[in-house]
Amino acid sequence: MSVKAKALYSFQSENKEEISIYENEELVIFDENSLDGWLQGQNSRGEKGLFPASYVEIIKPQSNCGFVDYSASPSSSSDASFFSAASSPPFYHQRGYDDEDDDDWDDWDDSSTVVEEQSRPEDGANGYSKPHFANSSVQYRVKPTLEHQDSISSSKRGSMVGKNLNRFSNFVRSGVEAFVLGDVPVISKNVESYTIEMSGQGPQWKANPQPFMCSIEEPTKQTKFKGIKTYISYRVTPSHTARPVYRRYKHFDWLYNRLLHKFTVISVPHLPEKQATGRFEEDFIEKRKRRLILWMNHMTSHPVLSQYEGFEHFLQCGDDKQWKLGKRRAEKDEMVGATFLLTVQIPTEHQDLQDVEERVDSFKVFAKKMDDSVLQLTNVATELVRKHVGGFRKEFRKLGNAFQSVSQAFGLDPPNCSDALNKAISATGQTYEAIGELFAEQPKNDLYHMLDKLSLYQGLLSNFPDIIHLQKGAFAKVKESQRMSDEGKMDQEEADGIRKRCRVVGFALQAEMNHFHKQREIDFKEMMQSYLKQQIVFYQRVGQQLERTLHLYDSI
Amino acid sequence: MSVKAKALYSFQSENKEEISIYENEELVIFDENSLDGWLQGQNSRGEKGLFPASYVEIIKPQSNCGFVDYSASPSSSSDASFFSAASSPPFYHQRGYDDEDDDDWDDWDDSSTVVEEQSRPEDGANGYSKPHFANSSVQYRVKPTLEHQDSISSSKRGSMVGKNLNRFSNFVRSGVEAFVLGDVPVISKNVESYTIEMSGQGPQWKANPQPFMCSIEEPTKQTKFKGIKTYISYRVTPSHTARPVYRRYKHFDWLYNRLLHKFTVISVPHLPEKQATGRFEEDFIEKRKRRLILWMNHMTSHPVLSQYEGFEHFLQCGDDKQWKLGKRRAEKDEMVGATFLLTVQIPTEHQDLQDVEERVDSFKVFAKKMDDSVLQLTNVATELVRKHVGGFRKEFRKLGNAFQSVSQAFGLDPPNCSDALNKAISATGQTYEAIGELFAEQPKNDLYHMLDKLSLYQGLLSNFPDIIHLQKGAFAKVKESQRMSDEGKMDQEEADGIRKRCRVVGFALQAEMNHFHKQREIDFKEMMQSYLKQQIVFYQRVGQQLERTLHLYDSI
Repeated sequence: MSVKAKALYSFQSENKEEISIYENEELVIFDENSLDGWLQGQNSRGEKGLFPASYVEIIKPQSNCGFVDYSASPSSSSDASFFSAASSPPFYHQRGYDDEDDDDWDDWDDSSTVVEEQSRPEDGANGYSKPHFANSSVQYRVKPTLEHQDSISSSKRGSMVGKNLNRFSNFVRSGVEAFVLGDVPVISKNVESYTIEMSGQGPQWKANPQPFMCSIEEPTKQTKFKGIKTYISYRVTPSHTARPVYRRYKHFDWLYNRLLHKFTVISVPHLPEKQATGRFEEDFIEKRKRRLILWMNHMTSHPVLSQYEGFEHFLQCGDDKQWKLGKRRAEKDEMVGATFLLTVQIPTEHQDLQDVEERVDSFKVFAKKMDDSVLQLTNVATELVRKHVGGFRKEFRKLGNAFQSVSQAFGLDPPNCSDALNKAISATGQTYEAIGELFAEQPKNDLYHMLDKLSLYQGLLSNFPDIIHLQKGAFAKVKESQRMSDEGKMDQEEADGIRKRCRVVGFALQAEMNHFHKQREIDFKEMMQSYLKQQIVFYQRVGQQLERTLHLYDSI
Repeated sequence: MSVKAKALYSFQSENKEEISIYENEELVIFDENSLDGWLQGQNSRGEKGLFPASYVEIIKPQSNCGFVDYSASPSSSSDASFFSAASSPPFYHQRGYDDEDDDDWDDWDDSSTVVEEQSRPEDGANGYSKPHFANSSVQYRVKPTLEHQDSISSSKRGSMVGKNLNRFSNFVRSGVEAFVLGDVPVISKNVESYTIEMSGQGPQWKANPQPFMCSIEEPTKQTKFKGIKTYISYRVTPSHTARPVYRRYKHFDWLYNRLLHKFTVISVPHLPEKQATGRFEEDFIEKRKRRLILWMNHMTSHPVLSQYEGFEHFLQCGDDKQWKLGKRRAEKDEMVGATFLLTVQIPTEHQDLQDVEERVDSFKVFAKKMDDSVLQLTNVATELVRKHVGGFRKEFRKLGNAFQSVSQAFGLDPPNCSDALNKAISATGQTYEAIGELFAEQPKNDLYHMLDKLSLYQGLLSNFPDIIHLQKGAFAKVKESQRMSDEGKMDQEEADGIRKRCRVVGFALQAEMNHFHKQREIDFKEMMQSYLKQQIVFYQRVGQQLERTLHLYDSI
């Protein structure tokens, strides 16, 4: 019995093995089991060939659920298990990476970048629980591959280890496959070097020898072209130069995109979300500033990111002409993506690949659960903010009004009324109205801060599926090459080369995992302490207001 | 053009001026303007005569609203302005006062009295804003009139001052009209005497020479008939005897009905509401006990009520046989209703009737506003209780769960996790769950107490429309008699008698108003202080819990 499927998205074939399919087209499937994310079948025009499994749904008449969603099933080659974001992202084809026309740097406004950014990982479950194709980080990660595709194909050595058929796989797109297979040429002029050391906690990035911090202050509204263009400028002051530079959000955004280009195996913190409307509203500016500060703290505390030349340029350049030169230099950096892995120095220490894989799996489980709980806490805190500003305030205001109303009633029969009592009751009403306002204002002191930090972590966690996917792909290649070597189909030397390069990926991932853990402990301790401290101050303040009010009754 | 009307309720004529009408019967109205609450017209059987205006609705084809609701219009004799409860209550006819078969005292269960009680004034706006016919206090107040109707008609002296045609008026029913007109015979054997004195605040009830308090404790479940009957018994201990007696709710209810019978011009506090189901549930028993205590405090603090013989009997009698004797004696008391006014000794001091009327009007405005604000505060407090037990608890529990969830995630990658931090975060989660429970429990410490007191005041306030109506009726009679005297249609002596007896009503009402004000100041001061104190303790407790939790982070 032939299995049928329906195309969910249109797909344009790019070589003779593939066939084009159109949205809603009915297809015949030859084998339900996808191979590396591809299915074999026939389209309605009789053409036979491959198409991405995630572009179609299998029609199963007798089944309860009616179709198999390959985008969430663990059937693709190596690791499409829970990190389903790592399986084929159809939008890659539909929405290629549009080169920004950022030559006109000075006229480039925040709002012009809004359309480029679709849904933020923050919006959903960060790709841990459901496939999300529009993940902007996936898109951004595409670029390096495209840039290096020619060099990779030109350096083809006809390796015996099969290339991954799934060209949508992040493993392939990022160039890490090419790196592991030894297809990335060593660039001689390389001066960068990032070292991984062994510590009690396992591999760690070597600390930045010149650590520094950086403040972000005074978001200021600026205009140009006689007020036609308006933007917000932030004063950015790194501690090691102590010289302020002034940056706009678009500068941060430029830097962020450079980081994504360059640091394939590093979890680059997401920038605070863009916003098309209300960009100049005080609350939004304040929120963006708070989140840029957190972003900056994470940047300066990261041993690798903090040493990036483009970051230095961002932090120090105060001259327009120099800025443009440095910007072009950063954009022409060749040590990006897979090539960046060539700059990583790893310890000589032996690590059993099996152990590393287990450690990564364990981290994967942890990251999934942490992502869930961060989302849960975010939802609860968001709802609490809503309650503070809404329900809580309303209840206390209503109580305050009711007391005032009693006081007014008592004042209506003058010869009999005790002025002191009526005033005290009225003051009690005012106190409860004030307490309502305290409740409404309180999120600014505690919950906002918590939500800022949780948002940063949602971004960091959403990067890990892609990063772990790289390591998984590398491991698969090692296993494959070892098997081929055992079967005499590959030189042991070549297999050893693959294993060696895979170790680089493994060490880099572990260093990144450890850095994440270290930073998370610092951040969450600070977050919890700060929340509790502010909560204590809050309840004390409410108590003090009530005590002052109670004393009004003493003299009656 | 003849005006038509439809009968809303059936009415049975009781003398030749009246005609019977039946529900839904169509009637012809001779004059749309009601006279003292009565309309003249013709029924479908051709009988012509009077029927109560509030029993019918006028059918006006051209009008927007279609009918005139006399029960809400200010057309009845004296004062159907805002105290609309004082206009004709049709239910009086439909549901006469059923004499309770309370001979079988010992078998008479709480639940058997539930049906007698329809809607409590607490349920609505206390008769201040809309007509309510089923007001139980109105029904209870009916009885004295029925008992004394014969004696009143038998003592008819053919006075020239017109009787109020509206026999549903509380003024008529209570017998106060008869008293003012001098139609209530002086009973020689009267030994009771309640004195009104003048004070800086105006007329006041003379204080009880033997003031006392009374505790209500230990509601205990009792059974009899081998467990078939179950009831709750309260230990009632008056301070002046220090000997406890045991009373059931039905005993309180009996006493309450005696008080309503006897004290026409006094605002008798309502008993806590009856409840057909869940009578033995702990929360209900606890609530009833708290409210019985407040009721008792109000009883003992009232100079007149606290001296009532039936109350003494209730507080002191511990013997079954003596109890029945005392009960019958109280039920045979003749000094009830209007007759009670004969026992009131008033000061000789002159009070200008105009001044008194203004004072009463001012009190009426105050009482209306106080009733509104007490209702408002009751609603807010009730909603706050609901929020404490529901929304507030839920929010804090959710926050607690989210923290716990973060802690669990952090425990999933063991070599990297800081146990101390995870434990502290978990403890923070527990703290917020505990704070949720503190919120849920808090109403027992503050809001319940407030609601108890507000409920007592709702009851007290709901009595005033009827009481003020009596005074208004009396004033109308004085004015009428003075006019008749001026026109030579009445002896000045008779007019003076009416004025003198009206003074008794006026003094009694003023004494009652002053007592209410005095007690209200004490009660509301206590209520506000107690609420604030408990709130302070609450916020301090929350703060302390958070402080203890914060310290867990110190050693990390």
